[in-house]
Amino acid sequence: MSLIVQKYGGTSVADAGRIMNVARRIVGTKMSGNDVVVVVSAMGDTTDDLLKLAHQITPKPSTRELDVLLSTGEMVSSTLLAMALKTMGYEAISLSGLQAGIKTTNNFTRALILDIDPQRILAELQAGKIVIVAGFQGVTEQMDITTLGRGGSDTTAVALAARLGADSCVRYTDTEGIYTADPRIVPDATQLKELTYEEMLELSVYGSKVVHPRAIELAEYYNMPLRVASSFTNNPGTLIHGGEKLEVRNKVTAISHDMNVAKVTILGIPDTPGIAAAVFVPLADAGISVDTIVQNASINNMADLTFTITEDDLEKATAIVNQVASKLNAREVLTDTHIGKVSVIGSSMLNGPGYASTFFNSLADANINIELISTSEIRITVIVKEDKVLDAVRVLHSAFRLNEA
Amino acid sequence: MSLIVQKYGGTSVADAGRIMNVARRIVGTKMSGNDVVVVVSAMGDTTDDLLKLAHQITPKPSTRELDVLLSTGEMVSSTLLAMALKTMGYEAISLSGLQAGIKTTNNFTRALILDIDPQRILAELQAGKIVIVAGFQGVTEQMDITTLGRGGSDTTAVALAARLGADSCVRYTDTEGIYTADPRIVPDATQLKELTYEEMLELSVYGSKVVHPRAIELAEYYNMPLRVASSFTNNPGTLIHGGEKLEVRNKVTAISHDMNVAKVTILGIPDTPGIAAAVFVPLADAGISVDTIVQNASINNMADLTFTITEDDLEKATAIVNQVASKLNAREVLTDTHIGKVSVIGSSMLNGPGYASTFFNSLADANINIELISTSEIRITVIVKEDKVLDAVRVLHSAFRLNEA
Repeated sequence: MSLIVQKYGGTSVADAGRIMNVARRIVGTKMSGNDVVVVVSAMGDTTDDLLKLAHQITPKPSTRELDVLLSTGEMVSSTLLAMALKTMGYEAISLSGLQAGIKTTNNFTRALILDIDPQRILAELQAGKIVIVAGFQGVTEQMDITTLGRGGSDTTAVALAARLGADSCVRYTDTEGIYTADPRIVPDATQLKELTYEEMLELSVYGSKVVHPRAIELAEYYNMPLRVASSFTNNPGTLIHGGEKLEVRNKVTAISHDMNVAKVTILGIPDTPGIAAAVFVPLADAGISVDTIVQNASINNMADLTFTITEDDLEKATAIVNQVASKLNAREVLTDTHIGKVSVIGSSMLNGPGYASTFFNSLADANINIELISTSEIRITVIVKEDKVLDAVRVLHSAFRLNEA
Repeated sequence: MSLIVQKYGGTSVADAGRIMNVARRIVGTKMSGNDVVVVVSAMGDTTDDLLKLAHQITPKPSTRELDVLLSTGEMVSSTLLAMALKTMGYEAISLSGLQAGIKTTNNFTRALILDIDPQRILAELQAGKIVIVAGFQGVTEQMDITTLGRGGSDTTAVALAARLGADSCVRYTDTEGIYTADPRIVPDATQLKELTYEEMLELSVYGSKVVHPRAIELAEYYNMPLRVASSFTNNPGTLIHGGEKLEVRNKVTAISHDMNVAKVTILGIPDTPGIAAAVFVPLADAGISVDTIVQNASINNMADLTFTITEDDLEKATAIVNQVASKLNAREVLTDTHIGKVSVIGSSMLNGPGYASTFFNSLADANINIELISTSEIRITVIVKEDKVLDAVRVLHSAFRLNEA
């Protein structure tokens, strides 16, 4: 008998009808002779609605209280799913993060999983039950409820699959899997049968919303293969795994893009050691992730520093950067939100022949101006004007012949 | 320093504005130098909304799952209240039933409190915090969430007050306290300063909705005085207590009435031993409380049996009674929902002089026909036609001069 961990997102359980639909899928897996553990997100917009409720009370809710409040969203969806399964004649039980033994740090609203005590889950499985676990939540040593922050439910699913030694972990979503590019933008984008953890991680960090990077990192760490498939069809979707079983290759896998990007430029900083630290330490302390960084060569002992962040963080970042710039006697701080990121991802790409030239030539031929460049072992990213992002995705998808993938 | 347990109902925390209002009241109590533990119900119609959600999935939800679902209502209100207090600058913490150490039986949807482990509450109080406890819920030995059924939050408050040895337990509501009759029906009804547990228990069972009988029984058992007061004014309300400190008296205290009454009559039952058992055992097994029972004198070896129940139970009861009646070869089953109950409550009333005659004479003078009568040590109840109930309340209130109370 195999143990399968499934994860269903908020849109898959947005109303009673969809919950019944998910229940039927789970029954299918159970009937095929598997033990099933299901991780579920809150219904539709529940989490946003609860946040609004909190903000009616105070603009800065206590994070300890906020976590209890938000955790109720997944408690509701998990109980409804368990009810649906029982109504269909299957033994099922919902477990909160606490009951599922998910122990976390006490960083409220962004707790990290420390360990999972699987006793209760294993006992319920042994009793023949389908176990529904409320995603996104855990409990501290003091029995206080925590939430795991962004990507929380994906992370719950992968962590459970790893800890339980599951044979398979499937993240169901409203797409058929991972594509060579966003099919809404590139109509001949093709669905990938498989890709490596590293490729998926770069795809996620650079724009794909399908699986949260944090869950992929965890899957990679525990070498827990993760399948992404549609909750509306029975297609196999895309398998994300370690790569040992993949064909040896050095080719481009997929293109991702991200419009939620803002650029901050500090102009005319008197060139002294420690500029980067002066800027990036307070940003990191404020929880702001900085992406591409470019420091221009110093002219007349004056440097320019440019970096990108998510647009969501711009207001907070600008306040910090203005203070720092004034301390550094910099001339000016500029911001720009009319930009986007386009990334090409592929194993061993940078070591392969001709990738960089194909990349830059195709963009130049299409008259797309590159503002900033950053690269990793398996990724080339460029920042371009926002109105050029979709063009760039299409041009690159075609240049790398991903429609033939 | 005194320890005060306060309980706020669903209407008192129905929206953000009312939650802030409740928070201000709590701060007032805290600022007067008291330790405060607050028990809170779910916001407004939350519990009904959650029930509806469950019934969209299945007409008969698993009770184990239903309890987790319903428990989220009080988790939400308790966290919002704690956020409100923290925003006002006061240290506060919400605790779920589990975190508050409320151990119950595993009768889901109607669990009984077995014990309270007050460790966490006491630790938080010692740390100077206002403790907000989610009412209506507890946890089994297996760490499964339970709800306490009807009157659950009132019961949580009284049980906590008793276990913590509180100096005072106040149940805030939308009325000023307990009245000699419903002031909407009897304009010169007067507010009672105090009454005994027994009087309040009879009042609650016979129509007053202010405090649930179960909470009053618990208050009596632990001799935990319970104050009922308005959450909108600062008046002292009504104190329900043991009576030792009350003036010695034998007088009528209050009139209650209840429209939610149905009468079931089984006509023409061949008179054999065991009729009552045949009827009332299956009703009790179905969880239906039977009130006034009258079995007519047998004529020609045929008996008639009449009893009252709440209208809510009528459908379920009729199905059972029809089956039993057919087994007993009874002639006919009649039901009537156009009736109501009027009760006069007072300590030592039945032993006092002239109460029964005042009672029956005043109704006769007002041409109010009595269908059934039942009495206890401290109560006389009559069943009358529904359209005579309010008349009867006014006539009795005046006859016993309760406007002078």
